[in-house]
Amino acid sequence: MNQDYIKPDNWSIIEEGFDTSRVKSSESLFSIGNGAMGQRANFEETYSGPTFQGSYIAGVYYPDKTRVGWWKNGYPEYFAKVLNAPNWIGINVSINNETLDLFTCKAVKDFRRELNMKEGWLSRSFKATLQNNIEIQVKAKRFLCLELDEVGAIHYEVTPINSDASITFKPYLDAGITNEDTNWDDKFWDVLKVSNEGNQAFIEAKTMKTEFHTCTFMQSQVFVNGNAINISPDILKKDNFIAYSYSKNLKAGERFAIEKFGGYIVDRNYDKTKLVEASKSVLGKAETLGFSGLLKMQVQAWANIWDMADITIHGDVKAQQGIRFNIFQLNQTYLGKDSRLNIGPKGFTGEKYGGSTYWDTEAYCIPFYMATKNQNVARSLLEYRYNHLERAIENANKLGFTNGAALYPMVTMNGEECHNEWEITFEEIHRNGAIAFAIYNYYRYTNDYSYIPEKGLEVLIGIARFWQQRATFSTDKNKYVILGVTGPNEYENNVNNNWYTNYLAKWCIKYAIENIKKVEAEYYTDFIRIMTKTSLSESELNSWKEVADNMYFPYSEKHDVYLQQDGFLDKELVTVADLDQAQRPINQKWSWDRILRSPYIKQADVLQGFYFFEDDFSKEQLEKHFDFYEPFTVHESSLSPCVHSIQAAKLDRMEQAYTFYLRTSRLDLDDYNKEVHEGLHITSMAGTWMSIVEGFGGMRIKNSMLSFTPKIPKQWEGYSFKINFRNQILKVNVSHDETKFELEGNESMELLVDDNLQVIEPNNIENVSG
Amino acid sequence: MNQDYIKPDNWSIIEEGFDTSRVKSSESLFSIGNGAMGQRANFEETYSGPTFQGSYIAGVYYPDKTRVGWWKNGYPEYFAKVLNAPNWIGINVSINNETLDLFTCKAVKDFRRELNMKEGWLSRSFKATLQNNIEIQVKAKRFLCLELDEVGAIHYEVTPINSDASITFKPYLDAGITNEDTNWDDKFWDVLKVSNEGNQAFIEAKTMKTEFHTCTFMQSQVFVNGNAINISPDILKKDNFIAYSYSKNLKAGERFAIEKFGGYIVDRNYDKTKLVEASKSVLGKAETLGFSGLLKMQVQAWANIWDMADITIHGDVKAQQGIRFNIFQLNQTYLGKDSRLNIGPKGFTGEKYGGSTYWDTEAYCIPFYMATKNQNVARSLLEYRYNHLERAIENANKLGFTNGAALYPMVTMNGEECHNEWEITFEEIHRNGAIAFAIYNYYRYTNDYSYIPEKGLEVLIGIARFWQQRATFSTDKNKYVILGVTGPNEYENNVNNNWYTNYLAKWCIKYAIENIKKVEAEYYTDFIRIMTKTSLSESELNSWKEVADNMYFPYSEKHDVYLQQDGFLDKELVTVADLDQAQRPINQKWSWDRILRSPYIKQADVLQGFYFFEDDFSKEQLEKHFDFYEPFTVHESSLSPCVHSIQAAKLDRMEQAYTFYLRTSRLDLDDYNKEVHEGLHITSMAGTWMSIVEGFGGMRIKNSMLSFTPKIPKQWEGYSFKINFRNQILKVNVSHDETKFELEGNESMELLVDDNLQVIEPNNIENVSG
Repeated sequence: MNQDYIKPDNWSIIEEGFDTSRVKSSESLFSIGNGAMGQRANFEETYSGPTFQGSYIAGVYYPDKTRVGWWKNGYPEYFAKVLNAPNWIGINVSINNETLDLFTCKAVKDFRRELNMKEGWLSRSFKATLQNNIEIQVKAKRFLCLELDEVGAIHYEVTPINSDASITFKPYLDAGITNEDTNWDDKFWDVLKVSNEGNQAFIEAKTMKTEFHTCTFMQSQVFVNGNAINISPDILKKDNFIAYSYSKNLKAGERFAIEKFGGYIVDRNYDKTKLVEASKSVLGKAETLGFSGLLKMQVQAWANIWDMADITIHGDVKAQQGIRFNIFQLNQTYLGKDSRLNIGPKGFTGEKYGGSTYWDTEAYCIPFYMATKNQNVARSLLEYRYNHLERAIENANKLGFTNGAALYPMVTMNGEECHNEWEITFEEIHRNGAIAFAIYNYYRYTNDYSYIPEKGLEVLIGIARFWQQRATFSTDKNKYVILGVTGPNEYENNVNNNWYTNYLAKWCIKYAIENIKKVEAEYYTDFIRIMTKTSLSESELNSWKEVADNMYFPYSEKHDVYLQQDGFLDKELVTVADLDQAQRPINQKWSWDRILRSPYIKQADVLQGFYFFEDDFSKEQLEKHFDFYEPFTVHESSLSPCVHSIQAAKLDRMEQAYTFYLRTSRLDLDDYNKEVHEGLHITSMAGTWMSIVEGFGGMRIKNSMLSFTPKIPKQWEGYSFKINFRNQILKVNVSHDETKFELEGNESMELLVDDNLQVIEPNNIENVSG
Repeated sequence: MNQDYIKPDNWSIIEEGFDTSRVKSSESLFSIGNGAMGQRANFEETYSGPTFQGSYIAGVYYPDKTRVGWWKNGYPEYFAKVLNAPNWIGINVSINNETLDLFTCKAVKDFRRELNMKEGWLSRSFKATLQNNIEIQVKAKRFLCLELDEVGAIHYEVTPINSDASITFKPYLDAGITNEDTNWDDKFWDVLKVSNEGNQAFIEAKTMKTEFHTCTFMQSQVFVNGNAINISPDILKKDNFIAYSYSKNLKAGERFAIEKFGGYIVDRNYDKTKLVEASKSVLGKAETLGFSGLLKMQVQAWANIWDMADITIHGDVKAQQGIRFNIFQLNQTYLGKDSRLNIGPKGFTGEKYGGSTYWDTEAYCIPFYMATKNQNVARSLLEYRYNHLERAIENANKLGFTNGAALYPMVTMNGEECHNEWEITFEEIHRNGAIAFAIYNYYRYTNDYSYIPEKGLEVLIGIARFWQQRATFSTDKNKYVILGVTGPNEYENNVNNNWYTNYLAKWCIKYAIENIKKVEAEYYTDFIRIMTKTSLSESELNSWKEVADNMYFPYSEKHDVYLQQDGFLDKELVTVADLDQAQRPINQKWSWDRILRSPYIKQADVLQGFYFFEDDFSKEQLEKHFDFYEPFTVHESSLSPCVHSIQAAKLDRMEQAYTFYLRTSRLDLDDYNKEVHEGLHITSMAGTWMSIVEGFGGMRIKNSMLSFTPKIPKQWEGYSFKINFRNQILKVNVSHDETKFELEGNESMELLVDDNLQVIEPNNIENVSG
């Protein structure tokens, strides 16, 4: 753990006291978003200290020209970057002409920041003494509407405490923004028009190259002691900036407040000539409801989300706060409303990594969205990849594959590859398998087979073709091998026969063949369409089988474990426990070659395969592999602890499972990896959800039924979660004594508890001894 | 072969006819240099077509900030770049106010370019018809003085043919130059002062960051029909530029000429406040000698070089031209006068690769310089590394090694690492072995042991320490292994147990121990000094031995060959002959992952080890390994064909040896790798020399004697080369019938011919049947 300043609280993230060295971390932790846009918790007023300003619009990106030291054939020319968007939250504040700036004022007292996750708002309050000795009290509250997802609202109030004062609010829009993360310091935005009308202002701008047209807008109203007043503002208009200025002389103790609505309209949803019109329309709705009406709507919208997605934990406030923070941030990032969007690894909280879509979506996020939303949300995420199939085929083509083989990119925004490290871009090909696995997982969970004949099978065929071509025959081993790959454990590069990759490749081919047969038998029209489109022949299928049936898997007889890759046993097998702690985290202390030749594992690799294909292995095998690999695992990927927590729980190692759970759920809150200032780890948050539901709850799908093997860490009194399973809502309550099931609706549900069949009747609480 | 426009000629490189698409290639091929400076064969007059302007000063570099896509711990912050220096060769020419520009003029006729290697000058002649319809004849000659190595001379003559004309010469200095190769478009030069006096002009400038102070200077004189005339020039002076302008009205047929002397004075040799003074002094010497006097001196200086370094080949003009081009370029690049300098892979002919020093120096260049110069030149090259030992220890430290372990950089200018690809920078560690091998090779050849107690042993100890620490123990193999390396064959990255690296590591340790014992026995004072300085203990020596005695070498029983690395046999072993030619060169056609998993070898790897440690293996073993690996070798490194030529000759495969010889000797002339426009492959040219002397001549050192096994390709009538062996000069003449030895001096020499002892008497030609 690297920091410990967030107050434990069941429903809120709370910071007390002002510390300039924490500003960037808190800007990440207190980020707000609504799926359509999001922003770091930057201050509304001027702040001249170290800060990372960021406001982002879903789906608005920029193809930054690739920067590498040494070019390799096949690298993408451009890298889609998450793009910092015009700032609409800014409100400059001056008191007797002195600018309020917490970095330069004389004193800051009673600073308190709260991110209320239950109701979905961010607040901040403090007392500041300015250089002119005037002390003021500031209270600010801000949220981004979930329902009207193009608008956000700010209430910002200043009260002079020790003296009368003249106070000026200057709400503004600023399109002169740049990215923290840029390769060539390109200009990203082209401002088209700055306009205003009454108390509303608009900046129309388009992104360079991608030409996403947007309108950033605002509208303001000031209040004295809670009463709206009319002040005719001064207006300052520049090429990429517009500010209104409201000044007022106040007595000590009088409250001067401003309510500002702002946000973005994007041409993904409107004709680009109608953006100002649409902005006025959404501002009209916001004005009608007012700040308090919008807030009420916000509280209700979040209540609806929590009703379905909440996980309660009793008796352990830090664990409770952790899981809610994870669920909250996932819902701030992606709500499943738009299949053109996906779940960026940093959501709207930072720019690092660029791109929006990694294998994280398929491997970690889909289970969460599948269980806590309507199943269409998961289907949208699958369709996102179907829509990128042609690009994945082009991508494979660039790397020398033919005949419709598809390699999905490591990182993408629009289906094109966005990454440029050869050992990742060209070699971390297991990502392709996760995309096939997600199709399997979706069908297993939802029982909705229709997706496969409609769309999924084409994806499975492209992926199977890739694996068949990528595997090569070793006459020495008399087996098919997969050479030169990087597995999920990115602390190994360009290895041969990564067990996880080989296993996944074999599975993908087998699963594709199985579904071709099923579609042929049950959806013949689709079958003919797909066979025609893909020109798939029986002889090609035979070549797939040949590879799948003769795949090589590295294995150690001595240890009776599958080897992570060829040659793993040649390493100096010193466990993490025996490693000098001063050397950690190794990715910040060691040169890359040293990391590579060490046995240390960044994230679950063989165990990731045991997680995906659990039924193929016995518990004894899992235990053996867990005992072999976990001692070498440094968990320096955010995606590692969750899988280990699930596996540890399965092995009844509850202390270990609990430790991993805390690490995954409080990764950012406690800043384990010393990087929270760059943004949050959004996608791994879905892994936290899995570690409770699948880990402690033991939820699986068996024989097309939900199955549970409930366990509970000794630190907890009880926990509960809710599941949408095939349109039935089931609540699961686990305590040390018993597990209760509560089923909504009218139909009963059969399920397995510790492998015993139970029938749960609706609206009855079924108790099962724990 | 990619191009075929250079005329075959025994002593000159000749181009006839003007083709704009060849300009950049010819700028490389006709480059001139004198060890202290060098320049691409850019035109003196304006040329607006595609050109790569380059003029370079030895030892003047710039630390360009590293640019990578993804930073790794241990990367150097800066990358020393060969730096484009101010241009002093420029002479703008105008005819009746029209600028002469071969790219835009109406017609170019009789264009001829000659690089006369025998005498060391570059000439160019052509007729051009300008847009104003005036036809002119131009003759230009240029050289960089070998003796006065700070100055160069140009004679440039224009004759109007079809009309009277007013002709203006504008000789200039231009410090407003940039690099082709730059990461951030930094400004590299800071101009301090532009000054002039009489017909001399000076630009004082310093490089940014490194603060190398230089003075670029020029002096001009014009002539009509060969007679010096006085024209009072107009002078144009700008911040970083100065031009003189000489105009003259000429009758048709009158010759208007300019002689320009120019060059650089650098503060490596002078106090930085005295640079203009030193410039005047060198210009004074040049003026005294005049163009023709300087040229005479140049011819003599090259005659001296050729007397010692020439290799003659009879009956094969292309082979003759090839070897002379190689010897000429090596001597243009490095003459061994200054131990602070080294041999850059592109010499003064381009900027690619940056840095100046690679393992090429030790592995390929030292034998050439050792045999064709005074042995102090080779000793200087060794001392260069001794002087960088502390930096090599720092470099190893950065990568986690301790206790005085030294890792020499992959690329360097001042001892610091200049490269930033993890698979090379951190993993291509075999370079360390070549540096130790060069010490061994120097002693073997010169019998000068003194270098080892004085300096070499410290280097050997630092290197042995590195290998001992870098090897790790595999309990699985019960051997020491070296994991995660890149061998000489850079088409494999991050492999385990590269045979060449492991072999070299073992040898380095053994050789260091052997020399510690010898120094202890024979140079006790040095021994005590070195032991004190390095704190080397007996127990540490034992740990070295433990590693060396238990080193693992990958081996295939089936094929009875050492394996290039672990897992080599898992590849799809399709030979180059069976590879679709449309796929070649693979480094331009394939993505990196495909190259890596292929069996294709960029340059000799196992065979490089057989070359270095020839006596450790039988001829049968060599044959077996040659037959196993050569069929997979694509020779896409310039350093590959020479070693193969030597090995093929040893195996009596003269056709193959000859093919490899042509490829190495005419690599640039025929542009095999389609990249000559970027500059020449200087260091591999020393390999060409080896392929004749060690390959066909079979020269070795055996029992402290020269040994030859002369062979001759059937395409040749005969060939000869000269060797400085321990201060005796021996000329070797090989024909199909006999081998003649000619010894200079007064003492006889014992040598082996086909393993028979011969005594060669001085000044007698000894015939030995061939």
